[in-house]
Amino acid sequence: MKDKVRVALAGLGTVGAGVVKLLDANAALIGRRAGKPIEVVAVSARDRALDRGFGLTRFDWVDDATALAARDDVDVVVELIGGSDGPALTLARGALGAGKHLVTANKAMIAHHGLELAAAAEQAGLALRYEAAVAGGIPVVKGLSEGAAANALGRVYGILNGTCNFILSTMESEGRDFADVLAEAQRLGYAEADPSFDIDGVDTAHKLAILASIAFGSRIDFASVATSGIRAVLAADIAQAAALGYRIRLVGLAETAPEGSATAGLFQRVHPCLVPLSHPLAHVTGSLNAVVAEGDFVGRLTFEGRGAGGGPTASAVVADLVDIARGRTGPAFAMPVDGLVAMPAAAAGERRGRAYLRFSVADRPGVLAEITAAMRDANVSIESLIQRGRAPDGGVLVALVTHEGPERCVADALARLEGSSSLTGKPLLMHILDL
Amino acid sequence: MKDKVRVALAGLGTVGAGVVKLLDANAALIGRRAGKPIEVVAVSARDRALDRGFGLTRFDWVDDATALAARDDVDVVVELIGGSDGPALTLARGALGAGKHLVTANKAMIAHHGLELAAAAEQAGLALRYEAAVAGGIPVVKGLSEGAAANALGRVYGILNGTCNFILSTMESEGRDFADVLAEAQRLGYAEADPSFDIDGVDTAHKLAILASIAFGSRIDFASVATSGIRAVLAADIAQAAALGYRIRLVGLAETAPEGSATAGLFQRVHPCLVPLSHPLAHVTGSLNAVVAEGDFVGRLTFEGRGAGGGPTASAVVADLVDIARGRTGPAFAMPVDGLVAMPAAAAGERRGRAYLRFSVADRPGVLAEITAAMRDANVSIESLIQRGRAPDGGVLVALVTHEGPERCVADALARLEGSSSLTGKPLLMHILDL
Repeated sequence: MKDKVRVALAGLGTVGAGVVKLLDANAALIGRRAGKPIEVVAVSARDRALDRGFGLTRFDWVDDATALAARDDVDVVVELIGGSDGPALTLARGALGAGKHLVTANKAMIAHHGLELAAAAEQAGLALRYEAAVAGGIPVVKGLSEGAAANALGRVYGILNGTCNFILSTMESEGRDFADVLAEAQRLGYAEADPSFDIDGVDTAHKLAILASIAFGSRIDFASVATSGIRAVLAADIAQAAALGYRIRLVGLAETAPEGSATAGLFQRVHPCLVPLSHPLAHVTGSLNAVVAEGDFVGRLTFEGRGAGGGPTASAVVADLVDIARGRTGPAFAMPVDGLVAMPAAAAGERRGRAYLRFSVADRPGVLAEITAAMRDANVSIESLIQRGRAPDGGVLVALVTHEGPERCVADALARLEGSSSLTGKPLLMHILDL
Repeated sequence: MKDKVRVALAGLGTVGAGVVKLLDANAALIGRRAGKPIEVVAVSARDRALDRGFGLTRFDWVDDATALAARDDVDVVVELIGGSDGPALTLARGALGAGKHLVTANKAMIAHHGLELAAAAEQAGLALRYEAAVAGGIPVVKGLSEGAAANALGRVYGILNGTCNFILSTMESEGRDFADVLAEAQRLGYAEADPSFDIDGVDTAHKLAILASIAFGSRIDFASVATSGIRAVLAADIAQAAALGYRIRLVGLAETAPEGSATAGLFQRVHPCLVPLSHPLAHVTGSLNAVVAEGDFVGRLTFEGRGAGGGPTASAVVADLVDIARGRTGPAFAMPVDGLVAMPAAAAGERRGRAYLRFSVADRPGVLAEITAAMRDANVSIESLIQRGRAPDGGVLVALVTHEGPERCVADALARLEGSSSLTGKPLLMHILDL
């Protein structure tokens, strides 16, 4: 790596092709910034014949991506295959085992195996870098682990999935329903043919678990992220939220509470939330992403930009390569792995907050009395109650906003209503982001 | 610097005291992140007796700050004295000359002498770091020089002065006039007794010149920043802008145009602008700062947070110290100084855009005809014209918004009206941020 950084690229999809195009387009500039050229020497992908807008003859082609790890002519392996396990993980382990720095955009792999890989990298004095795995082109891994390094961070949250944000903000601006907008997003390439990882919140949960580890110095704990997605959000919910001064966003949120408090531990949740118009996340529209971190000295920091796509993601991958060229091979999670603390998962029950609840109910007398009685019996105080509109199932929509209180009370109220013949569908609970 | 980073702190005002408090509060965390403790060993300030909320006896006290440079027991000098020249510059030169890393929050010094200091640091293999000099606690120097390092950046702009943004957004939310809000800001400590550096845009210009160098790989050119401030903005302008769907912000903007284009070169301007509500900068309120950068691959990146104050600025200073502890001593302006290009200043005349013009005019027939004739003769096409309200000088306020056109035409129109007896005051020109 003396005169140049030699890169092996595994995966030539949107992001991999973007990396090649970026390194071509900005080669001179990157050389000046990195202090040496960054050159792709070998590539591997599923389909050699595919037209990617550039030729492959200048690269060594390797059929088996995992074989890239062992090459003597490579300093850094860039893993863009995807998937938490399988060939991506085999390649990642192999690369670090063979003394190569590793750059990846693979959030699933980092969320599940990041600590193992980081420990291997540390022991070998190698870099494990994954800026592209969280919020695409936004340099938020760097922003938290280096830019905010002086702070004890108490909370990190954000909009981490562009597909969901595109769907929610399109539903909002055009008054259309979820299924309709999802189909459009799939046509436009903003959503996968199987969109469940995105719209059920799993992708956001991967990214959140990584951010929480960086922010809090905690061991990654993906399994403890309480995750729900946006399938149940109706156009009517968005209209109702708008009338109350809110926008609906899928928010991944992690926070720590002081020891001894009722909510002590690490709290991680992915959930559609009502975001007031005064909050920066309310103004993040389309497929943009944004991350907010709260530090004890810096206060609130917000990072916004494009969370996906070939160009932005390639920007993050190559930023990692520039860092490696500059000799920056520090720990992957802002501190050595054995300094990371295993934080117990905090229960949500004692968290205090306001909530939005929406019911589809039968159109008959006594239904409102039943709902409000359940609220009363669960000690949930109602701030406002609105009965308006028709549910897709023919029922009547009833929405209410609670006063601030413990989340367990709202859960209790919903439990009391479970199975009630007054409800024509599953109620929707969304938390209100009063931050 | 093997076992710990030993720091000499010059200046114990709000920021210096914040650095001491931060290093005390987060010592253990910072040690884990930095890999070693960061310790202040010597300090210097104007007033030794002042109560800062902590004692000084554990530090070596030095009366003459510039003497800190020569100490053998110091690895890093943190310069928080302020001022582009004088003791701050003497200390900075001395520290680098004596083999100490230098961290500073001094935008004026970096804007005027940053290249000289960066060259000295490079030759000696030392770090010159100044995250706190631009946008306080927001890690935007790192965000641009490292996070966006893969991109050719075409434009960087933002709200870089919290005092101005506090004044403008308070005028906006409360309908009050400039002088009134300025006086309140001074009482609250948000504005200096002599506020001219802030409200006349000089502080923003210092920060902009630094950001432009990082973004474009150009030599810092503070002298070429066209600078105007917010003194002339009336509550009526803010109300008028609001009616048109805009908010007024003091924006520092730098951009490069492709060679061969009419506006080739480096364009840098600080100016109150009309920002549409759809733009993130419109939602930056109070004393917050925000920076936007446009990269060829990453697209638009936005960084928002607190731009001033002891805590946020100390956060940035200590982030630099953590980087130094981690061994990161790369070039100060994202590439070696001799790689930076001296870009000629671009003339504004051929830039195209829309503008807001506001006149205070005599209340008599023919005045509007005179103004609109000047516009016509200068080839300025009018999008809308509003005559409404009274100027403080007793005249009538006339505001207009132009269609997009070259800026030289608007300047020509104003030149044609100069000295006209119809105008009772100097017209106010604000550009519209159509980005």
